[in-house]
Amino acid sequence: MRKVAESTVARLSVYLRQLAELEREGVSTVSSAALACRAGTTAAQVRKDLSFFGTFGKRGLGYSVSELSSELRTILGLGRTWRVALVGAGKIGAALYDYQDFRRQGFYIRAVFDNDPAKIGQRWNGVEVRPASELESVLRGEAIDIVIIAVPASAAQGVVDRVVSAGVRGILNFAPVRLTVPPGVELKNVNMAVEMEGLSFALARR
Amino acid sequence: MRKVAESTVARLSVYLRQLAELEREGVSTVSSAALACRAGTTAAQVRKDLSFFGTFGKRGLGYSVSELSSELRTILGLGRTWRVALVGAGKIGAALYDYQDFRRQGFYIRAVFDNDPAKIGQRWNGVEVRPASELESVLRGEAIDIVIIAVPASAAQGVVDRVVSAGVRGILNFAPVRLTVPPGVELKNVNMAVEMEGLSFALARR
Repeated sequence: MRKVAESTVARLSVYLRQLAELEREGVSTVSSAALACRAGTTAAQVRKDLSFFGTFGKRGLGYSVSELSSELRTILGLGRTWRVALVGAGKIGAALYDYQDFRRQGFYIRAVFDNDPAKIGQRWNGVEVRPASELESVLRGEAIDIVIIAVPASAAQGVVDRVVSAGVRGILNFAPVRLTVPPGVELKNVNMAVEMEGLSFALARR
Repeated sequence: MRKVAESTVARLSVYLRQLAELEREGVSTVSSAALACRAGTTAAQVRKDLSFFGTFGKRGLGYSVSELSSELRTILGLGRTWRVALVGAGKIGAALYDYQDFRRQGFYIRAVFDNDPAKIGQRWNGVEVRPASELESVLRGEAIDIVIIAVPASAAQGVVDRVVSAGVRGILNFAPVRLTVPPGVELKNVNMAVEMEGLSFALARR
């Protein structure tokens, strides 16, 4: 299988969102130029990105919105549901728990963990907040695919090591720290503070 | 001024966090190897990243933790405070409002906007949630430097156009959509759904 760049995959996610919007608008076909325009890129880029995965659309006719949407969902692994656990039941964790875009794409949070005795035992729409001591047993018992890390930076690597040892192969990290995982484990970082400092860096250099 | 890659700037943010932790631990000097290890990179990368901005540390002695920390804060534009506005007072917006890492680095949210009549007029630690109709006048009146976009994808480009027209030059976008801004405006994206789909893509291809 050809290696696909992360930036390509990220654009597929953006195309998929634009296709969903087109479907809501009742549009049935779209040209690569029109899709590119909505996604903030070029028609050539759209065609190149899709070419990694097969042949889509008809020359001169464009893409069927529903077909391409369905193909992209399969490519992105969204044709199934994913069992997700959330470690860290603070404000960021709570916002992620309710994040509509996750649920809409099939990412269901089945377990929540925290260290705070005041939070342990709470029920979030039926999902109990459990103590971190139960991490490994619950991850295995619930057959969790993906873990979201929303703990303080200083605790994050320790949590990740335990998550990996419990057999989880996908990690989405919100802690503002660079984490290391062994080969075979997929790690993605969402670093709000780093992006914000990228802005201040650029603005300060003006 | 040499063009500095975004990935370099992102690593500076990570180094700064590690230095802050070292300071809390009472460590006064650190080698590039030790800093690299904590930041999940290599000593050569640390030295290369820093070389863009001058000469730091002494050969064989390493870096002074407090000096390098202070230099990095200046480089990243953190030697001052930034006036920030938040558009979108939903769950994500509320979590960002309370995000400690922003405040700690000098990003202060001075204005909050929403369209929901139930939210307009609420006070978030003294900052009033205002109607979106007042966007331009408040951004100018409050001399806002950076705007955080936490609105639904379909509304995001419209908000950004208004923010740009009001003279704001830094935008941090949380809406799951690719936005376009004119030259001279800095845009950073934090896309949780895209990162999550990057995970499902990788896991599904196993």
